[in-house]
Amino acid sequence: MLEGVTVGVLGGTGAQGRGLALRWAAAGIPVVLGSRDAARAEAAAKELVDLLADFGTPDAQVTGADNAVCAARSDVVVAAVPWEGHSELLALLASELEGKVVVDCVNPIGFGKTGPFPLDVAEGSAAQQAQAVLPGSRIIGAFHNVSAVVLADMLQTEVDTDVLVVGEERADTDLVIALAEAIPGVRGLFGGRLGNAGQVEKLTANLIAINRRHKTHAGIRITGHGL
Amino acid sequence: MLEGVTVGVLGGTGAQGRGLALRWAAAGIPVVLGSRDAARAEAAAKELVDLLADFGTPDAQVTGADNAVCAARSDVVVAAVPWEGHSELLALLASELEGKVVVDCVNPIGFGKTGPFPLDVAEGSAAQQAQAVLPGSRIIGAFHNVSAVVLADMLQTEVDTDVLVVGEERADTDLVIALAEAIPGVRGLFGGRLGNAGQVEKLTANLIAINRRHKTHAGIRITGHGL
Repeated sequence: MLEGVTVGVLGGTGAQGRGLALRWAAAGIPVVLGSRDAARAEAAAKELVDLLADFGTPDAQVTGADNAVCAARSDVVVAAVPWEGHSELLALLASELEGKVVVDCVNPIGFGKTGPFPLDVAEGSAAQQAQAVLPGSRIIGAFHNVSAVVLADMLQTEVDTDVLVVGEERADTDLVIALAEAIPGVRGLFGGRLGNAGQVEKLTANLIAINRRHKTHAGIRITGHGL
Repeated sequence: MLEGVTVGVLGGTGAQGRGLALRWAAAGIPVVLGSRDAARAEAAAKELVDLLADFGTPDAQVTGADNAVCAARSDVVVAAVPWEGHSELLALLASELEGKVVVDCVNPIGFGKTGPFPLDVAEGSAAQQAQAVLPGSRIIGAFHNVSAVVLADMLQTEVDTDVLVVGEERADTDLVIALAEAIPGVRGLFGGRLGNAGQVEKLTANLIAINRRHKTHAGIRITGHGL
C-alpha cells in the first residue's frame, strides 16, 4: 500500500515532524522534510540521514525543501506544524496539496499555571480547520498522541502506542493506518469520522498531565477482544 | 482509603451505573443505586444482590432509593445519568450533594447517519457543567471509557482498561483512583485538571466507532515507562 509513496512532512524540523520522518525513513519510505526555510530543512534531513546510517540504514531517503516544494514533491503530506499559524500555513499550500491526502497531527493545546488545557477551535478541531481551508484535499487526523521523545530515540526499537486514525474515506484511513504501522510497535486503528478528531487532538493534554505526574512519555493503547 | 465509604450511583438503573455498582459491590463496597423511581432502584438492587450471590458474594451491600435519598445516604456520588437532563437532575440534588465528591461519568455524544459524534457543551464538558450547577461539591471526571457490557459480564473477571481521573484536588482524584482500582483489572490514572474532562468524555465516540468496526467493546490503556 505504501509502495512508491513519498511522504512529505510540513514542519519537518520540529520535534514531532522529525521524529515521524526518522521512523518512516528507517522503514525505507522516502521522506521530504518541509520547513519555511529550505536550508534548515536540508540541514535537518542531513542529520537524519547521518543518524540513520549509524542505526543500520545507510541508504535512508530523506531530503529537505521549503514547505511548498515539500508538498508538491510528496504523495501524502503530514502537517506537523505548530497550532499557531496552522490554517494560514496550510491555506498558502492549497494548490500543492490539491487532490492529496493531508495527515493533520496538530494538537490545539495551551499551557497555564495549572497545566495543559485544550484550546477552543471554531471548526471543532485542527483537522476540521484543515479541511475547511483545503477543500481540494482529503484530511485525515492521526499521530496526535505519539511521543516525539520516544520517536526520536532509536534505542527504543518499538514505539508502544496505538495511533487513532480519523477521516471520511476508508481508502485514505487505511493508507494512514499503513503509515502508522510502518513504525515498529505501532498499531493503527480507525477511530471514527473526521468530526471525531478534536478529542483525539486534545487528549494530548491529558497525556502531558500524565507525563508530568509520572515522569514518563505516555502513549495510548486501545483494548478489546478481537483487536 | 475506601474504608467506611458508601458509594451512591445516580442513574443506577442504567447500563453504565449498574455495571459500576455491580463491580463495586463485588469488591465489598456498600452501594446505593439511585433512580427517579425508588421502586425501580430497589428492584435493580435486588437483581444485583441475586447476581452477586451466584458469583460468590452472598453478602453484597446494594440498596436502591430515589436519587435524592441515594445522594443523601452516600459519601461519594457517581453521576451515571443520561446527558439529556444532566444539569437539571444534578441541580435538584445540590443540597444532598453539598460538600461531597461527585464523580461525573457522563458522555455528551450524539449519533448520526455516519456514526457517533461529540456534542458541543457550553461549559466545555459534562464535568464542568456539573461543577457549575454544584458549586458546593467537588466534581471529578472518571469512568467515561469503561464498557458497560464488559462491566456487566461477571465472567470477565478482569476489566482490561485504564480509567483517566480528572479533577482539581489530589485527595479527591486519589479517592476516585482507588474506586477505579477496586474493579479487578482496572488501573486509575490522574489525567489532568477538570478542564481536561471534555476530551475524555468525547473519546467515547471514537471507542464506539472502533466497537462498530471491530465488533468489540473497546477500552483504553496508557503506555509509558514507569507507569
